[in-house]
This record gives sequence, structure tokens and C-alpha cells, in this order.
Amino acid sequence: MKIYDWHTGPYPARVRMALIEKGLQRDVTFVSVDLRKGEHKKPAFLAKNYSGTLPVLETADGTLIAECTAITAYLDALRGAPVLTGEGALERGLIHMMNKRAEIELLDPISVYFHHATSGLGPAVELYQNAEWGLRQRDKAIAAMHYFDELLAARRFVAVDRFSMADITVLAGLIFADLVGVAIPETCRALHMWRERMGARPSVSGWMELSRSK
Amino acid sequence: MKIYDWHTGPYPARVRMALIEKGLQRDVTFVSVDLRKGEHKKPAFLAKNYSGTLPVLETADGTLIAECTAITAYLDALRGAPVLTGEGALERGLIHMMNKRAEIELLDPISVYFHHATSGLGPAVELYQNAEWGLRQRDKAIAAMHYFDELLAARRFVAVDRFSMADITVLAGLIFADLVGVAIPETCRALHMWRERMGARPSVSGWMELSRSK
Repeated sequence: MKIYDWHTGPYPARVRMALIEKGLQRDVTFVSVDLRKGEHKKPAFLAKNYSGTLPVLETADGTLIAECTAITAYLDALRGAPVLTGEGALERGLIHMMNKRAEIELLDPISVYFHHATSGLGPAVELYQNAEWGLRQRDKAIAAMHYFDELLAARRFVAVDRFSMADITVLAGLIFADLVGVAIPETCRALHMWRERMGARPSVSGWMELSRSK
Repeated sequence: MKIYDWHTGPYPARVRMALIEKGLQRDVTFVSVDLRKGEHKKPAFLAKNYSGTLPVLETADGTLIAECTAITAYLDALRGAPVLTGEGALERGLIHMMNKRAEIELLDPISVYFHHATSGLGPAVELYQNAEWGLRQRDKAIAAMHYFDELLAARRFVAVDRFSMADITVLAGLIFADLVGVAIPETCRALHMWRERMGARPSVSGWMELSRSK
């Protein structure tokens, strides 16, 4: 299978981490879509993904699957352990809930902040900006850091008692926050410690090198 | 199990339709959270769902599951046919992709338009509004109607060759559009016809009465 992505992108990182967790990284060819040139917003790529976002997976027969959660669900059904989207009703519900919460409260707000309240990908790509909205989203993301900090003071992983897609999405949020200079508050000790623990996983330390090493 | 929701809410509609499709509606007690009074943004409810959104499912042992996709995944794993989130890797990937696309391109933009560019739930609830952002989101939703129209000119259902969670999410988008007076363009014939076909399903015609009939 192919994956259209960009090697430093925080959303692509989600799928790259999932691939490494599942041991599927050698089954993938990466195709670069240059975010800096806005290739993801041009007609050739929009024909692959209406929403103009990375990453997109293409199966051997040419079927296209966009959206990180969808790609992770696909990979999870393709190969068994470790299961990233949950086994049984309760795990599935809790992982999907926390994954979505990490998206809407942390990762997506940081992305909106980047594209609307900073120079983002530059004037040729950022054709419309709403700085006021972007700044609100940055504040929302910082509030979410405090929320996840409190959560992780009481448990080892974000959603259930093992690593899951929800941990990956929080990590992607923090990766994006680093890129745009939004620091995790120092008082968020549990979040800092959790991130350090997660950093020991090969998926979390190695996702960026995935396409370079091929 | 309990479901905290509001009987006319478009997001609650997603879970109500899923319940009827799966024949689980009699296993649920509905608890009203009055959107018009902003009960979903008050501390008592925020303790149940950090994001302050409806619906939230509570299991018999008190576990809380928020987010429509998560609740649908939970219900799907709880009881077999009909499967709303897909069987096998490809179906799962495609359904989750189209479900997310329906959220981010249609349903969520209509919601943002409502809360930011109209009076929304009133001044006591809408404490911050960004009208310019809201209007952009309305236009994004209308563009998505054209996208789904083109898609549904060529197939019977949104994601795969049977009814799924993705159909439910497009329907919820159109329900919300009705509520806020954003019409489906007349030229979107396939979308109009698809909606009419979907209206024949008991889940689509009956979700609003679910809590009243109990």
C-alpha cells in the first residue's frame, strides 16, 4: 500500500506511529505531498481527498482512505495485535471517545491556531485567515493540556489500560504544539512525564525517519 | 443504559438513529439535558463530558461514553447485525472516512454557523461568537452538499453498499441545515432523492419521538 503524506506532519505522524506499533511499516511506500508548496490543496490531490488533508492511504487496488482514525481502523482490522482501536464494546467506545476528544480539544485547535493566527504555510497557501478564531483555539488547546494532565496523573494511558489510538492523537497534538511554539505548561507534570514515558516507544521516537530510511 | 441528550438535537439524532437501526432503543433511558438553557455547558454536565456536547451514553456501571462515533462503535460491538461501522478492514476504513468527512465538511460547519453567525442558543449560552468564521462554515457546508450530491448520483449509500454510520452523519447534517434554514440547493437532485429514500427507514422517520414514547 501507499501512503501520501509529509514526513514532518503531525497528522501523518498519527498513521506512522500506528504503522510502527502494528509492525506494518515495511508494507508501505510513502509518497511525499509537499505541504510547504500547498500540494495538498491542489486539484490533483483534492481528487484523492476532498478535504485536502494528509495522510491518505491507497490500497493495492487503488482504494483511497483518508482521515487518520479511518486509516488506523483499517490497519487495525488488517492485522491483529496490538489492537489500537479497542477490543470489545467498552474499549472501542472509550478509545474512540478519547481519540475524538484529543482531536477536537487539542490537535485540531493547534492546527487552526497555526493556519489562522501565525503565518502558517505562507501567504500562497493560507488564502483566508481569521486570527481571532486562531487565538481562541490556541487557548482551547492549552486548557486541554491541563485536562489531559489531570487525567494522566491518575492513569498510565489516555483511554484504557494500554497504549491506543487515543495516546497517539494526544502525542500528535503535542508534536504540533512544539512545532508552533505552544509550550506545555510547566505545572502539567503528569503530562510531561507521560510524554517522556511514551518517547521510549519505537513508534514515538521513530515515526519521522520512516520515509527517509526506505 | 442511559443516554443524556435533547430530543431535537441533530447530534443526538445520530445516536438515536443508530439505536433504532440496531433495535436497542428499548434498552435505553433518555435523560434530557436542556440545550436551550445551556445545561450542557454547566459544571454538572461538564463533569460527564469535558467537551460539553450531547449525547453522552452511561453504561449500567456508570462508565461515560461521549462522542457520537464512539457511542456508535460501542453499540455496534454490543450487538451484531446490522453493522453500522463496518466489517473487515476495507469497510471499516471507508465508513470511518466518510463519517468523518460528513462531520468536518457538513455537520460541524452547520453547527458552527448556527452558534457563531446566528443567535444560536441565545446570549446566555453563546458567550463568544465569531460571525465571519460562522459564515465561512455555512459556505463550506453548502459546498459539501454539492460534493455528497455528486457522490450519491453514482451510489446508493454514502460509504459502502449498505446503510452505515456515514449515512447517519450526512442525515444529521441535513437535519441541522433544516433547523437553521440552510437549504439543500435545488440542483442537488441526487442528494434530495437519497434523503427521500432514507426517510423511509424507521430510524430516520422515528428518532425524534424516541424519548416521548417512553
